[in-house]
Amino acid sequence: MYFNTAEISPRENYQLLTGAVVPRPIAWVSTLSKNGIANLAPYSFFTVASCKPPVLCVVQVNPRDRSEKDTLSNLLATRECVVNIVSHVLVDAMNTSCGDYPPEVDEFEKASLKKSLSKLVTAPGVEDALVRFECNLREVKLIGEGAMGGSMMLLDVLGVEVNDAAMRAGLIANDLLDAVGKLAGDGYCTTRSNFDLERPKV
Amino acid sequence: MYFNTAEISPRENYQLLTGAVVPRPIAWVSTLSKNGIANLAPYSFFTVASCKPPVLCVVQVNPRDRSEKDTLSNLLATRECVVNIVSHVLVDAMNTSCGDYPPEVDEFEKASLKKSLSKLVTAPGVEDALVRFECNLREVKLIGEGAMGGSMMLLDVLGVEVNDAAMRAGLIANDLLDAVGKLAGDGYCTTRSNFDLERPKV
Repeated sequence: MYFNTAEISPRENYQLLTGAVVPRPIAWVSTLSKNGIANLAPYSFFTVASCKPPVLCVVQVNPRDRSEKDTLSNLLATRECVVNIVSHVLVDAMNTSCGDYPPEVDEFEKASLKKSLSKLVTAPGVEDALVRFECNLREVKLIGEGAMGGSMMLLDVLGVEVNDAAMRAGLIANDLLDAVGKLAGDGYCTTRSNFDLERPKV
Repeated sequence: MYFNTAEISPRENYQLLTGAVVPRPIAWVSTLSKNGIANLAPYSFFTVASCKPPVLCVVQVNPRDRSEKDTLSNLLATRECVVNIVSHVLVDAMNTSCGDYPPEVDEFEKASLKKSLSKLVTAPGVEDALVRFECNLREVKLIGEGAMGGSMMLLDVLGVEVNDAAMRAGLIANDLLDAVGKLAGDGYCTTRSNFDLERPKV
């Protein structure tokens, strides 16, 4: 079936994009409001934007049409966040944190999660996350229009806390991290069904 | 273990980012050179940048230090590409296409892949891919410095071809698409170990 994107709704474009761009990594972003209230929310439009310097890219698109999520307003107010990685053991807590709670609700408390102290930012991390990226906001780039347009948050990574339990021979090991990814709809995948392919020598 | 990113090498930052930001979707990008030679290469720094209008984001970072890949030079010359999605059955062909071949090599031929005619762009797609996004280059945003910095390619999606074999009830179905994702190092995962989580009602 062929879809001309100019002839279908933003909702249908959203379904095609989230159905095909899979599996997506999950940025579980913790921030503080100006008043010191913690916020925690997962985003699956998430990738690496640069390695020199290290920059992460997290995009907010809002299909449920709440115009500005707490993450973005907190980031704009404080310029700081922590990007936590979701291992399989944390998926239920992650899902609890993605309810549309009002700004005065601390999702750490809702999900019974402990906060970790960060070293280079004031925002707390998720204590049980095996990897935590401490970040400063580099830039917000707006792409497209309205709630279904993208707010691209480019984040300078200042420090990375990796639990020794996720490392083997000095590197993060796929099986030890046991990350989950996002699929279409309400779907998630594990990274447990995996294989190696060596790049071809040319 | 704590890593201050200013005190480690770009290579070590690359390893931390690609080790933790998993599983990553794969954009298998086909382009044409000015002279009409086809190119095909996979990128795993890939996400959705907007749904209104639909925009994809593909970032090139070059750890093997070849300064400009054919995809980017072709995109800058022709402003067009197709982003193909890699189902499990196509992983060996995808891996063959990621060798560092010179510009005069057509990776479709190297990987014994048939080209599909696109409707809204001149660049061909991968005939056997179940989803093909036909795109125009919207913008290249440079982030950071040198080969380990990012060249962020923002792509306006004009049309989407979805094989009926990947659809159920009008939507792309995770099990039918059977996409693969990228992990750390030479690792890949399938999306076959999966589960659903309903969003909390608040």
